[in-house]
Amino acid sequence: MAKKSAQVQSISDAFRVRPEDFDLAKVDPAATPVGPQSKAEAAEDMPKIGEELDGLQEALYAEGTGGSRRRVLLVLQGMDTSGKGGTIRHVAGLVNPQGLHISSFKKPTRAELRHEFLWRIRRQVPLPGYIGVFDRSHYEDVLVARVDNLVPSTEWRRRYRQINAFETELAAEGVTTIKCFLHISPERQRERLVARLEDPLKRWKYNPADLEVRAKFSRYQLAYQDALAKCSTPAAPWFAVPSDRKWYRNWVVARLLLETLRDLTPTYPEPSYDPAVELARLRESDPLR
Amino acid sequence: MAKKSAQVQSISDAFRVRPEDFDLAKVDPAATPVGPQSKAEAAEDMPKIGEELDGLQEALYAEGTGGSRRRVLLVLQGMDTSGKGGTIRHVAGLVNPQGLHISSFKKPTRAELRHEFLWRIRRQVPLPGYIGVFDRSHYEDVLVARVDNLVPSTEWRRRYRQINAFETELAAEGVTTIKCFLHISPERQRERLVARLEDPLKRWKYNPADLEVRAKFSRYQLAYQDALAKCSTPAAPWFAVPSDRKWYRNWVVARLLLETLRDLTPTYPEPSYDPAVELARLRESDPLR
Repeated sequence: MAKKSAQVQSISDAFRVRPEDFDLAKVDPAATPVGPQSKAEAAEDMPKIGEELDGLQEALYAEGTGGSRRRVLLVLQGMDTSGKGGTIRHVAGLVNPQGLHISSFKKPTRAELRHEFLWRIRRQVPLPGYIGVFDRSHYEDVLVARVDNLVPSTEWRRRYRQINAFETELAAEGVTTIKCFLHISPERQRERLVARLEDPLKRWKYNPADLEVRAKFSRYQLAYQDALAKCSTPAAPWFAVPSDRKWYRNWVVARLLLETLRDLTPTYPEPSYDPAVELARLRESDPLR
Repeated sequence: MAKKSAQVQSISDAFRVRPEDFDLAKVDPAATPVGPQSKAEAAEDMPKIGEELDGLQEALYAEGTGGSRRRVLLVLQGMDTSGKGGTIRHVAGLVNPQGLHISSFKKPTRAELRHEFLWRIRRQVPLPGYIGVFDRSHYEDVLVARVDNLVPSTEWRRRYRQINAFETELAAEGVTTIKCFLHISPERQRERLVARLEDPLKRWKYNPADLEVRAKFSRYQLAYQDALAKCSTPAAPWFAVPSDRKWYRNWVVARLLLETLRDLTPTYPEPSYDPAVELARLRESDPLR
């Protein structure tokens, strides 16, 4: 690992949710506690992050072809307009799309509702070598399910344990999970909703029901407080990412992903053949030479 | 449509396979008949292509959320080292990964073989609004199946019609299919296989069985000749893309994709709500204002 200067803590340390003293109300959605302090500074760093990420992703993918079970899962949650889609575009867009598995979890279908809540999630867990991205996730089942009373409270309370057990199981199977809560203020959400309504090219992103969800903003914050505090585990930590500034949000998630891949240090597999023998085969007896 | 100068034909016209007079043996894998004549020229054009593609893709995706059934399917075929993976990285990598659906078809599993050959393909057809990319495809079932005598000749011959019927059906469902054969010379393949064996970071891409396939290079060319000539239809044309130069291959496929999306001219859907009403709701009665 590279030595860190005394001032610069790791991004992971700066934003990881520590269950014992986590208070979402004290997280400023506009804060920029570490890293770039301007859009320009962030823009300068992103290609560097991209280049390193790209190389690590290829090694992870290569490792997977050699039999390794390791993979990464990035979970994105947040209120409407918090930037789940924008993060995918700008962060997942930094790497080779062939090594990505992006899954979007919308309101469960009737078929999905006939299964237990983790059923549809399990089907989308990335395969070895891949970086999976969840746009919303099983956390909806302790967020909207709670706020809208879709299930009794005994049920959603039980789900915290089920989720932790599931994510521990994923870790045992080689999945490194990082979960990002894209934290925005209600004021910034209003601005972004106005922008969606005023720009004809953004209107497709708006749904009148968004205002009903917005009216429950503070109830959602409570639901997030509990979900993050109860389910930020060593096996699958939560990060509360200040997301009022898009450039900062993208930078933080990109850096978190980079730190995660660096820690994994994926390695190219040893070939199962002798390269010298194959080179000789190719050079000496190639009928197409 | 922009007017074209007399000299510059469309990329589609330049590379489309015309069944009546197609002769693969006459297609030079190193040719650069239209477009950039150097890596630098291509590199200059790619970001422009990317920017336009990105905007068109977002409109296609938006259109899909409004109920349109339209989508695009890019099929990539070619011998080992022809650059299917590289094309995905450099062309699909130009757009938002959230709107992509990339499928890789390897040797069919035992479960897949219990179904008819199009079964696994149908499951990966992109949903409305998406750009799908097939890394290999149902064409393997008239290529390797033929060369290796995996099925009787009556069977693979029948498949041309089945494939054409399938692709016509896709077109009726709103899928615009473009199929690119990445055409390389045996000499260039040898160079690239040597590079894979000599570079420790590329060895994972090599498999000793690649040399057995290479030994059948000319039989594969015959199989491609027939597949391209028999299955290049107005509903789903084939393009023979000179691929000895990576930069040219990437540029051609990117331009073909761009022309395809331009022809579709996807449009943002009309909102199903009244933006003025919603703005008023948001501004006047927002409890979180």
